[in-house]
Amino acid sequence: MSTTTTVSVSGMTCGHCVSAVSEELEAIDGVEAVAVDLNAGGISTVTITSGKELSPAEIGEAVAEAGYLVVANEA
Amino acid sequence: MSTTTTVSVSGMTCGHCVSAVSEELEAIDGVEAVAVDLNAGGISTVTITSGKELSPAEIGEAVAEAGYLVVANEA
Repeated sequence: MSTTTTVSVSGMTCGHCVSAVSEELEAIDGVEAVAVDLNAGGISTVTITSGKELSPAEIGEAVAEAGYLVVANEA
Repeated sequence: MSTTTTVSVSGMTCGHCVSAVSEELEAIDGVEAVAVDLNAGGISTVTITSGKELSPAEIGEAVAEAGYLVVANEA
Protein backbone atom coordinates (compact mmCIF):
# COMPACT_ATOMS: atom_id res chain seq x y z
CA MET A 1 0.00 0.00 0.00
CA SER A 2 1.34 3.39 -0.94
CA THR A 3 1.17 6.59 1.05
CA THR A 4 0.93 10.02 -0.54
CA THR A 5 2.48 13.03 1.20
CA THR A 6 2.11 16.57 -0.08
CA VAL A 7 4.29 19.51 0.94
CA SER A 8 4.64 23.13 -0.14
CA VAL A 9 8.12 24.25 -1.19
CA SER A 10 9.33 27.80 -1.83
CA GLY A 11 12.10 29.09 -4.07
CA MET A 12 11.78 26.65 -6.97
CA THR A 13 11.96 28.56 -10.25
CA CYS A 14 12.69 26.16 -13.11
CA GLY A 15 12.98 22.62 -14.31
CA HIS A 16 16.48 22.33 -12.86
CA CYS A 17 15.04 23.09 -9.41
CA VAL A 18 12.40 20.41 -9.97
CA SER A 19 15.13 17.90 -10.87
CA ALA A 20 17.24 18.79 -7.84
CA VAL A 21 14.36 18.42 -5.36
CA SER A 22 13.04 15.26 -7.04
CA GLU A 23 16.46 13.58 -6.93
CA GLU A 24 16.90 14.28 -3.22
CA LEU A 25 13.39 13.05 -2.35
CA GLU A 26 13.72 9.93 -4.51
CA ALA A 27 16.84 9.04 -2.54
CA ILE A 28 14.77 8.63 0.66
CA ASP A 29 14.24 4.96 1.53
CA GLY A 30 10.74 3.87 0.52
CA VAL A 31 10.00 6.71 -1.90
CA GLU A 32 8.44 5.45 -5.13
CA ALA A 33 7.59 8.63 -7.02
CA VAL A 34 7.82 12.40 -6.78
CA ALA A 35 5.59 14.85 -8.66
CA VAL A 36 6.19 18.59 -8.65
CA ASP A 37 3.65 21.23 -9.63
CA LEU A 38 6.10 24.07 -10.30
CA ASN A 39 4.94 27.58 -9.44
CA ALA A 40 7.96 29.72 -10.38
CA GLY A 41 8.21 32.75 -8.14
CA GLY A 42 5.66 31.30 -5.73
CA ILE A 43 4.98 28.15 -3.74
CA SER A 44 5.34 24.84 -5.55
CA THR A 45 3.43 21.72 -4.58
CA VAL A 46 5.44 18.52 -4.21
CA THR A 47 3.64 15.18 -3.98
CA ILE A 48 5.61 12.17 -2.76
CA THR A 49 4.40 8.59 -3.10
CA SER A 50 6.06 6.10 -0.76
CA GLY A 51 5.74 2.56 0.49
CA LYS A 52 5.77 3.73 4.10
CA GLU A 53 4.89 6.84 6.10
CA LEU A 54 7.46 9.62 5.73
CA SER A 55 8.27 12.00 8.56
CA PRO A 56 8.14 15.77 7.99
CA ALA A 57 11.75 15.85 9.21
CA GLU A 58 13.13 13.54 6.55
CA ILE A 59 11.21 15.33 3.80
CA GLY A 60 12.37 18.72 5.09
CA GLU A 61 15.97 17.57 5.21
CA ALA A 62 15.90 16.23 1.64
CA VAL A 63 14.37 19.44 0.30
CA ALA A 64 16.93 21.51 2.21
CA GLU A 65 19.71 19.33 0.80
CA ALA A 66 18.57 20.44 -2.67
CA GLY A 67 18.68 24.05 -1.49
CA TYR A 68 14.99 24.78 -0.93
CA LEU A 69 12.57 25.17 1.97
CA VAL A 70 9.41 23.29 2.96
CA VAL A 71 7.01 26.07 3.96
CA ALA A 72 4.00 23.87 4.77
CA ASN A 73 3.49 20.16 5.41
CA GLU A 74 0.20 20.11 3.52
CA ALA A 75 -0.09 21.89 0.19
CA MET B 1 44.72 39.07 -26.62
CA SER B 2 41.27 38.36 -25.27
CA THR B 3 37.96 39.54 -26.63
CA THR B 4 34.93 40.23 -24.44
CA THR B 5 31.43 39.66 -25.82
CA THR B 6 28.29 40.57 -23.90
CA VAL B 7 24.81 39.28 -24.67
CA SER B 8 21.39 39.53 -23.01
CA VAL B 9 19.64 36.25 -22.22
CA SER B 10 16.03 35.75 -21.15
CA GLY B 11 14.45 33.00 -19.09
CA MET B 12 17.27 32.31 -16.63
CA THR B 13 15.87 32.02 -13.13
CA CYS B 14 18.35 30.32 -10.84
CA GLY B 15 21.88 29.08 -10.31
CA HIS B 16 21.11 25.89 -12.22
CA CYS B 17 20.26 27.99 -15.27
CA VAL B 18 23.54 29.87 -14.86
CA SER B 19 25.43 26.57 -14.77
CA ALA B 20 23.65 25.23 -17.84
CA VAL B 21 24.35 28.32 -19.96
CA SER B 22 27.93 28.64 -18.70
CA GLU B 23 28.70 25.01 -19.54
CA GLU B 24 27.42 25.34 -23.09
CA LEU B 25 29.32 28.59 -23.71
CA GLU B 26 32.54 27.26 -22.18
CA ALA B 27 32.36 24.39 -24.66
CA ILE B 28 32.81 26.81 -27.59
CA ASP B 29 36.34 26.66 -29.03
CA GLY B 30 38.36 29.63 -27.79
CA VAL B 31 36.15 30.57 -24.83
CA GLU B 32 38.20 31.29 -21.71
CA ALA B 33 35.61 32.48 -19.21
CA VAL B 34 31.89 33.10 -18.81
CA ALA B 35 30.34 35.45 -16.26
CA VAL B 36 26.58 35.68 -15.69
CA ASP B 37 24.79 38.53 -13.95
CA LEU B 38 21.56 36.67 -13.12
CA ASN B 39 18.35 38.67 -13.20
CA ALA B 40 15.72 36.08 -12.30
CA GLY B 41 12.43 36.86 -14.00
CA GLY B 42 14.10 39.38 -16.29
CA ILE B 43 16.99 39.68 -18.68
CA SER B 44 20.36 38.32 -17.52
CA THR B 45 23.67 39.66 -18.78
CA VAL B 46 26.22 37.10 -19.94
CA THR B 47 29.82 38.16 -20.53
CA ILE B 48 32.07 35.83 -22.48
CA THR B 49 35.86 36.16 -22.64
CA SER B 50 37.52 34.42 -25.56
CA GLY B 51 40.82 34.17 -27.36
CA LYS B 52 39.19 34.99 -30.70
CA GLU B 53 36.12 36.82 -31.99
CA LEU B 54 32.89 34.87 -31.49
CA SER B 55 30.00 35.07 -33.92
CA PRO B 56 26.49 35.91 -32.70
CA ALA B 57 25.38 32.64 -34.32
CA GLU B 58 27.66 30.38 -32.29
CA ILE B 59 26.78 32.17 -29.05
CA GLY B 60 23.07 32.00 -29.87
CA GLU B 61 23.29 28.30 -30.63
CA ALA B 62 25.10 27.50 -27.38
CA VAL B 63 22.58 29.45 -25.31
CA ALA B 64 19.71 27.75 -27.15
CA GLU B 65 21.33 24.36 -26.49
CA ALA B 66 21.02 25.14 -22.78
CA GLY B 67 17.36 26.00 -23.33
CA TYR B 68 17.47 29.80 -23.26
CA LEU B 69 17.26 32.68 -25.71
CA VAL B 70 19.67 35.48 -26.61
CA VAL B 71 17.44 38.55 -26.81
CA ALA B 72 20.15 41.11 -27.61
CA ASN B 73 23.76 40.91 -28.82
CA GLU B 74 24.83 43.76 -26.56
CA ALA B 75 23.65 43.87 -22.96
